[in-house]
Amino acid sequence: MNDFVAEVHDRMPVVLKPGQFEHWLSGAMTVDVRRRIPKETNMSDIASTRQLRLLRRSPSYWRITFDHPPLNIFGPETIPQLSEVVSELETDHDVKVVVFDSAVEGFFLTHYDFLAKPEDTTNLPPGPTGLAQLPDILVRLSRAPVVSIVSIRGRATGVGSELALASDMRFASREKAILSQWEVGAGLVPGGGPMARLPRLMGRGRALEVLLSADDIRGDLAELYGYVNRALPDSELDEFVDALAVRIASFDKQAIAETKHLVDIASLPADAEIAPEWETCMASIARPAAQTRLRTLMERGFHKPGDVENRLGYHLGQLGSGPL
Amino acid sequence: MNDFVAEVHDRMPVVLKPGQFEHWLSGAMTVDVRRRIPKETNMSDIASTRQLRLLRRSPSYWRITFDHPPLNIFGPETIPQLSEVVSELETDHDVKVVVFDSAVEGFFLTHYDFLAKPEDTTNLPPGPTGLAQLPDILVRLSRAPVVSIVSIRGRATGVGSELALASDMRFASREKAILSQWEVGAGLVPGGGPMARLPRLMGRGRALEVLLSADDIRGDLAELYGYVNRALPDSELDEFVDALAVRIASFDKQAIAETKHLVDIASLPADAEIAPEWETCMASIARPAAQTRLRTLMERGFHKPGDVENRLGYHLGQLGSGPL
Amino acid sequence: MNDFVAEVHDRMPVVLKPGQFEHWLSGAMTVDVRRRIPKETNMSDIASTRQLRLLRRSPSYWRITFDHPPLNIFGPETIPQLSEVVSELETDHDVKVVVFDSAVEGFFLTHYDFLAKPEDTTNLPPGPTGLAQLPDILVRLSRAPVVSIVSIRGRATGVGSELALASDMRFASREKAILSQWEVGAGLVPGGGPMARLPRLMGRGRALEVLLSADDIRGDLAELYGYVNRALPDSELDEFVDALAVRIASFDKQAIAETKHLVDIASLPADAEIAPEWETCMASIARPAAQTRLRTLMERGFHKPGDVENRLGYHLGQLGSGPL
Repeated sequence: MNDFVAEVHDRMPVVLKPGQFEHWLSGAMTVDVRRRIPKETNMSDIASTRQLRLLRRSPSYWRITFDHPPLNIFGPETIPQLSEVVSELETDHDVKVVVFDSAVEGFFLTHYDFLAKPEDTTNLPPGPTGLAQLPDILVRLSRAPVVSIVSIRGRATGVGSELALASDMRFASREKAILSQWEVGAGLVPGGGPMARLPRLMGRGRALEVLLSADDIRGDLAELYGYVNRALPDSELDEFVDALAVRIASFDKQAIAETKHLVDIASLPADAEIAPEWETCMASIARPAAQTRLRTLMERGFHKPGDVENRLGYHLGQLGSGPL
Repeated sequence: MNDFVAEVHDRMPVVLKPGQFEHWLSGAMTVDVRRRIPKETNMSDIASTRQLRLLRRSPSYWRITFDHPPLNIFGPETIPQLSEVVSELETDHDVKVVVFDSAVEGFFLTHYDFLAKPEDTTNLPPGPTGLAQLPDILVRLSRAPVVSIVSIRGRATGVGSELALASDMRFASREKAILSQWEVGAGLVPGGGPMARLPRLMGRGRALEVLLSADDIRGDLAELYGYVNRALPDSELDEFVDALAVRIASFDKQAIAETKHLVDIASLPADAEIAPEWETCMASIARPAAQTRLRTLMERGFHKPGDVENRLGYHLGQLGSGPL
Repeated sequence: MNDFVAEVHDRMPVVLKPGQFEHWLSGAMTVDVRRRIPKETNMSDIASTRQLRLLRRSPSYWRITFDHPPLNIFGPETIPQLSEVVSELETDHDVKVVVFDSAVEGFFLTHYDFLAKPEDTTNLPPGPTGLAQLPDILVRLSRAPVVSIVSIRGRATGVGSELALASDMRFASREKAILSQWEVGAGLVPGGGPMARLPRLMGRGRALEVLLSADDIRGDLAELYGYVNRALPDSELDEFVDALAVRIASFDKQAIAETKHLVDIASLPADAEIAPEWETCMASIARPAAQTRLRTLMERGFHKPGDVENRLGYHLGQLGSGPL
């Protein structure tokens, strides 16, 4: 099997896109990467792949399950799928609560797809808020008149952490959840809102530690820091989240929406504070520091099932040694 | 004994006011309720009842004890009593610290009185801040040049939680404290400031959980979330709070007041952010969702000593089942 | 040995300045104090004393060690030394992370020097931000494009706590760290930013407790309150902080600086909010309440190694008893 083609998952074949690799990562590695492009890959295959599933448990209680094995990487083709779901959450008359979870062992939702063509991201028109697509979706989720609950089992890194932070509540498996903003470790600036959201959730000091250590945060520490509402024993997580969702779904939608709206006024950052994160992130990707680090990560197994993705915090700490 | 008349407490007879029930809860239940009006009830009896006691331990250390058995329900007649005390706290030259506690077993201070005549609340003129009476009293308490400490044993629900949140510090019995904002579970929007205050205290995620789950929060979780400063073993709570109050009362009033004022600047929501909560709350009471839920709660024992008041969080979770 | 001359430390002789005592503490004690001025003391001796050491572990990882035995008291002569270091942190092209620690057993960094001449402080010109020197240095440290980590072993009181709060991250020895804002206990208002910074870090309630109880906070409670990021077993603190610093120093400086800058926007108080703390603090020192309390503290051993400095929280609680 080609190094840059993910294993075919039994439920949903997924093909990573090494052909676009030279765009996010320019320069010396381009030729190496081109050699690995599997001939059978084309965009329509990719675009048609559902990376998340929407299940309506009832008209008032929905579940969105990320199911993009093997790693639940988030890329430009995930964007319209998530945007569509958030638009439904904004306008549906009956839905009161939505739970986000994952069908992929070990990964709730992880970093952006660095094998995708950059223009597939940068050419996307701004969303309804005027922000770029990813931050737009996240701020719309925060403001939707619906309660969003994230159930984190496995890794929630990068976009996964940012989606969690934009949601209303976060619950984590004590044993199996890993949260992180990994970006600074790769020479990047995060782009989906964590600099605005983390300090408001856990205070400046712990937010700076999460962002600037770029390290993996386990369930217990995530709970201590307020990164999640609570960490629960893995065996209790699903039942707890489901009971909470069922409970809230039994309440009145208008009372929920009005109460949440008043909390929004007290707690949400302005969109103008979110906007520069995306621009700063995009600029950071083009810099040599990020290019070099991402290239080394790729050589070591980034974007493929294995130790780099599983223990990303550890591997980020190894990048700066030697000639870097 | 009439279902809608509370048990006569050995220290202070309290008569709930079912005669006004049809005002907060309009419609189908009116006739049923009217039948239960005890003839001997009249407003002057009620208005003359002291629901809180002010004890000056010393000129600098005061205690306010809620003593309105059997449930420490807060109603329109509590308002002038609490307002008067807060006015004294604002203007007295000697007082430095005030402790709020309860003389009622199982209840620190709980929800608003839904058996009171609505106009007894809505006809009250705005307070000195221009806010409605209850939010006015609470923002004045927050800004008073005096340290307010809440000692929570038993249930602090609705107004009880809102008073705690408007106070400067909160300490809870680990075994016996229960905090909650129950309103959303009854189709209501809270009205006394928690949407503005909770996210600033514990972050948006945990604040949304408290408000939108509308569930009972015990001492340990309240401490983890920062809902209280600390939860202490019940046997140590009184001594701890008293020692802290004595300590602060030994300090200089001007240093206390100036330091607190600078913290106010950094941490208090603007009155303009508090104001819409009350209006939204008042509007929510009139809606069918709230009327239906409150009526069902009443039928099950709300406003009377017993399981509904004791385990309010549980019972709120039962309201939406069936035909609702 | 003169009561007001500190023990000569084996590494660095330090002479406290009782000659200036009558300035911060006017009135009755002046004569007593003058008698104790050691003739050999002069300002040039004092000014030339280094109270902190800068060690460049590498171009990207610096350490600043407070080494002003026996108590690590912070005074006017510390100001230019710390200011100079912060200026280097602002402008150096290579430094990415700085760790603050202490070489003095039992004291990380403690309160201001009340034996210094007041005009040595008040005559200092404002810093580059327009704020007075101490708050200027602290806000510049918060905004420097460098990660500041405080490793707290021993007492961090007053300026020590304020420096910790202005730094980006705080780690504490679980057994040996003591944090406090002691000022209100002495009739003073703190002056270095804690009213602006503490509520943003731990919420209003816990911030008011720290400030208005003026009591000693141990490692476990500091962690629970978010006063520090984490409390670690004393035996693990150094290794943990060093590993974190090495890790961050291996990352890209621009990614660090840009990410921190965006967190600054979300979390730092405006300078205009910091400014009045210093003015209020200066005014408070002149008032009789503070003068009396400081004088009593001095008589009991303040500014000298011993129980008052070691258990300052306890002794502050004793000042108000009796005729005060």
